[in-house]
Amino acid sequence: MTKVLLTGFEPFDGEEVNPSWEAVRSLEREEVEGVEIRVSCLPTVFGKSMVHLREAIHQSQPDVVIAVGQAGGRTAITPERVAINLEDARIPDNEGNQPVDQPVVKGGPVAYWSTLPIKRMVQTMREEGIPAAISHTAGTYVCNHLFYGLMHEINHSNRPLRGGFIHIPFAPEQAVMGDHPSMSLETVRRGLLLAVKACRHEQDLAVGMGTTS
Amino acid sequence: MTKVLLTGFEPFDGEEVNPSWEAVRSLEREEVEGVEIRVSCLPTVFGKSMVHLREAIHQSQPDVVIAVGQAGGRTAITPERVAINLEDARIPDNEGNQPVDQPVVKGGPVAYWSTLPIKRMVQTMREEGIPAAISHTAGTYVCNHLFYGLMHEINHSNRPLRGGFIHIPFAPEQAVMGDHPSMSLETVRRGLLLAVKACRHEQDLAVGMGTTS
Amino acid sequence: MTKVLLTGFEPFDGEEVNPSWEAVRSLEREEVEGVEIRVSCLPTVFGKSMVHLREAIHQSQPDVVIAVGQAGGRTAITPERVAINLEDARIPDNEGNQPVDQPVVKGGPVAYWSTLPIKRMVQTMREEGIPAAISHTAGTYVCNHLFYGLMHEINHSNRPLRGGFIHIPFAPEQAVMGDHPSMSLETVRRGLLLAVKACRHEQDLAVGMGTTS
Amino acid sequence: MTKVLLTGFEPFDGEEVNPSWEAVRSLEREEVEGVEIRVSCLPTVFGKSMVHLREAIHQSQPDVVIAVGQAGGRTAITPERVAINLEDARIPDNEGNQPVDQPVVKGGPVAYWSTLPIKRMVQTMREEGIPAAISHTAGTYVCNHLFYGLMHEINHSNRPLRGGFIHIPFAPEQAVMGDHPSMSLETVRRGLLLAVKACRHEQDLAVGMGTTS
Repeated sequence: MTKVLLTGFEPFDGEEVNPSWEAVRSLEREEVEGVEIRVSCLPTVFGKSMVHLREAIHQSQPDVVIAVGQAGGRTAITPERVAINLEDARIPDNEGNQPVDQPVVKGGPVAYWSTLPIKRMVQTMREEGIPAAISHTAGTYVCNHLFYGLMHEINHSNRPLRGGFIHIPFAPEQAVMGDHPSMSLETVRRGLLLAVKACRHEQDLAVGMGTTS
Repeated sequence: MTKVLLTGFEPFDGEEVNPSWEAVRSLEREEVEGVEIRVSCLPTVFGKSMVHLREAIHQSQPDVVIAVGQAGGRTAITPERVAINLEDARIPDNEGNQPVDQPVVKGGPVAYWSTLPIKRMVQTMREEGIPAAISHTAGTYVCNHLFYGLMHEINHSNRPLRGGFIHIPFAPEQAVMGDHPSMSLETVRRGLLLAVKACRHEQDLAVGMGTTS
Repeated sequence: MTKVLLTGFEPFDGEEVNPSWEAVRSLEREEVEGVEIRVSCLPTVFGKSMVHLREAIHQSQPDVVIAVGQAGGRTAITPERVAINLEDARIPDNEGNQPVDQPVVKGGPVAYWSTLPIKRMVQTMREEGIPAAISHTAGTYVCNHLFYGLMHEINHSNRPLRGGFIHIPFAPEQAVMGDHPSMSLETVRRGLLLAVKACRHEQDLAVGMGTTS
Repeated sequence: MTKVLLTGFEPFDGEEVNPSWEAVRSLEREEVEGVEIRVSCLPTVFGKSMVHLREAIHQSQPDVVIAVGQAGGRTAITPERVAINLEDARIPDNEGNQPVDQPVVKGGPVAYWSTLPIKRMVQTMREEGIPAAISHTAGTYVCNHLFYGLMHEINHSNRPLRGGFIHIPFAPEQAVMGDHPSMSLETVRRGLLLAVKACRHEQDLAVGMGTTS
């Protein structure tokens, strides 16, 4: 049995919902063969989000952590490949913090790789008709902060924990004016479920999914 | 009782599905108070699509015709405002026709307005959390051909028929690489149902939904 | 000798420049074999823009009128194919007018075609390395208002006047944050000069430049 | 006197020009107070590009290396913030190599920061009316390969060398169909010149230029 902790975020930037938490919470009671799912909602706040994540990890003792966040403007579900040791906030977080050019962890390495089978995730989503792609930047805001913090935690833990981050598009109701692409909650839900299932495999696929720039 | 004929198109341009027909066919048995729905699938062929549409109108004797088509690359459900008397095909249709700078109807007027309550449709979709916007071009391919042909037919008919065209985005399974925005069949279905309901009103709303360019 | 009147617009929507006037004014003293160029700057105001255009036509007695306007967000120089009899303003014009669903000309036809050799323009621009495409909507704001008004004027004039509208992208200095595409003044200038030269031909090219939607 | 080595790439992916080399070569004889400019054209080939870069560095003994590459689809000049230890080629390079999930340097760190004053570059470009933004991914192709290789070299060198990478948009002649944004050679040239001038300062600006995702 693989225990997977899924996290979503609280709404930010004036939005009324955050599709990451809406999708994650909908998976709480989902039954997946060989997998036990735990969920947690994190504050969109530098620092505090990591405190909550550590608690959730402590409580649920997962084998895998998949943190999920909203990436307004994207067209696909995008597992992130790399977390960078940088905070550079374009807007204040939900408690008014707006760090510029700060490290997530002083003295930490420049970056960490995701240890999730991200290409397997993308491939199975595509096979099931769900738009998906690898992303090589999780931004420099709370999402990347949490992703880097998680990977740093994992690297300094004694437990064999795997982890990573997945960005998802706006929900349709956040994009009613037609100015941005969006993805329905149901599609995101199905995609995340396939991502969870992919975590039963430790090995990733070796297929090209890079970008020229 | 308002009788509404909904039409979708067959797949084209190498696609395996056309979300317009998938969405329209799913509404065939839908019960809407005060509305009777009829559906028809049209070939993506200049000329022949109009022949089929005329037959479908003749058979179902509708009060309203809503033709629906795929607009790959759009992010929202977009009721079209105006049909132009032009065929200028970027790619061949499903029978190899590729007219350049031909009129849909020789001697016909330059353009016809939609006579559907398009702003009411957009507003109710937005209120229900569905991305929607007015479009001012239906292109110059089979969609615009059918739209213009329909409006010409209506203008020369004795029956009090209203009609127009709605473009919808790619379905998710047409956009799995993440290169294009898409919209789930369920969201499109809900949107079209709201569009059908809006047709119980003859009067449109007078709210600004224009574009600067 | 072909006399060509080029018009640009004053800045609007909070912008400090309007690249249409910057480009047009730079062509005032341009020498083109067989062509005499006149330029005029029009107010971005419903109604008043047409008053100024009529005066400019009266003064310069051109054979061809090319009205130019800014289309923020576009990537290419886009000769417009069709003007529609509609004003539907998303934002107020420079004097606070914000018409909704008004005709440009009461009782006028739904639309007019451009009578410029727009495909020839696009083709020569492309051959010279300048991004260009036909557009099938000039929007529903002052640009379309002027375009429709011009074509209506031409249709009710005794003189053999040809005319149309060309939209151009933002200038680089309007897009410094990197959120929108832009085109340098010099590229626009070269493109418009090619458009002017194309007007020495009355016949357009019969090449496909349509869109599926 | 600060000696700056600028590099561009040979065309790739079927293109006939690479605007990075066109812009860089045009700066060869540019006189900038306090700066001496050297230029070099690199093959768009994994491995070999680094061999050429090392030679160019050896020959010109620069204080600063600015590698420049084409990023088709971008709207702005984008100094890159971080290079990652990954090769994942979507298309073959100019000699047919197409590595998947390979490190640039076996055993190297996950990533290196640029040591150029990238925010100063962006700010001065914006002040001069040139679209610019920080990018947090240089992709996973030859550009990132060279960027990572350069930073690794710098980190293992005894000389006080600073370096980094700047991506630029397509040239207009690569985007004539209007499907992609582009930037004129002259605008890119002016932008790179400002970037070179910014390198006279070792300290970067501490202003927020991050992204939420």
